[in-house]
Amino acid sequence: MSDTYLPPDERSTGRALRLLAAADHAALGTLAGGDPLVTRVECLWLAGRGLGLLLSDLADHARALEADARASVLVGSVTSGPPMAAARLTLTGEAWPIDKRAERDTWLAAHPRAAVYFDFADFRMRLLAPASALLNAGFGRAYRLGPADLGCGT
Amino acid sequence: MSDTYLPPDERSTGRALRLLAAADHAALGTLAGGDPLVTRVECLWLAGRGLGLLLSDLADHARALEADARASVLVGSVTSGPPMAAARLTLTGEAWPIDKRAERDTWLAAHPRAAVYFDFADFRMRLLAPASALLNAGFGRAYRLGPADLGCGT
Repeated sequence: MSDTYLPPDERSTGRALRLLAAADHAALGTLAGGDPLVTRVECLWLAGRGLGLLLSDLADHARALEADARASVLVGSVTSGPPMAAARLTLTGEAWPIDKRAERDTWLAAHPRAAVYFDFADFRMRLLAPASALLNAGFGRAYRLGPADLGCGT
Repeated sequence: MSDTYLPPDERSTGRALRLLAAADHAALGTLAGGDPLVTRVECLWLAGRGLGLLLSDLADHARALEADARASVLVGSVTSGPPMAAARLTLTGEAWPIDKRAERDTWLAAHPRAAVYFDFADFRMRLLAPASALLNAGFGRAYRLGPADLGCGT
């Protein structure tokens, strides 16, 4: 069957990057004992690298990623209007640990409330490096993107 | 390690059911060739049964569920205030096909805009019967629920 997703163009890649830059939270999909698990996490787009995720060790998703780094995230808020018409972006890839201390200033500038828990020992950071992406910009306007379209090296 | 999620009580189960009743869209987690995939879908809580999902065959998540019915959904909108303080609910279970025609009136009453595409041949319905659930009602208030807490038989 032919792919029903469109190839990216300048407009769709711009839209995807704006969704990522605006995202302060994401729906994170992990594998919990092999089963899908979707939870909300705090995030920040780290341009050229991927999506930073700040995670508590106490949450099921942290245990899931410890066992299997494969992950997917959905970003794009539904603010007003019909939710299925609101643009959203899916990233898929692997989310590996990074040193949160190196991202501290950037993170707290974007997430001032995170100052309350950022330094807690049970909070760790991972970077989801996108291997592929799906942009849905509304009915019949779905695009399949690669990491280079999002400015990420491979 | 002991479970860091609280057992449910009357207040948390009520909160969970209100989140489900209010949900018109969800972040759906599926297994796409074994990898996590999170996408936005239209949904409707079918009390006592589970979460109805209206899916197009053209989307990657439909192909994923065709191969493996295991799924998870995240519901709970971020309207105002900090997103990580906004209550949300995760369901995990299996999403099996149901006859969309039997749900047509209920669905269109809740989703009037779906009249445009509900009858399209590529749109099919699945029911995610929850096997377990996680309610996050804000920092430090996470609960692990079972299907009976959501009024669903086992």
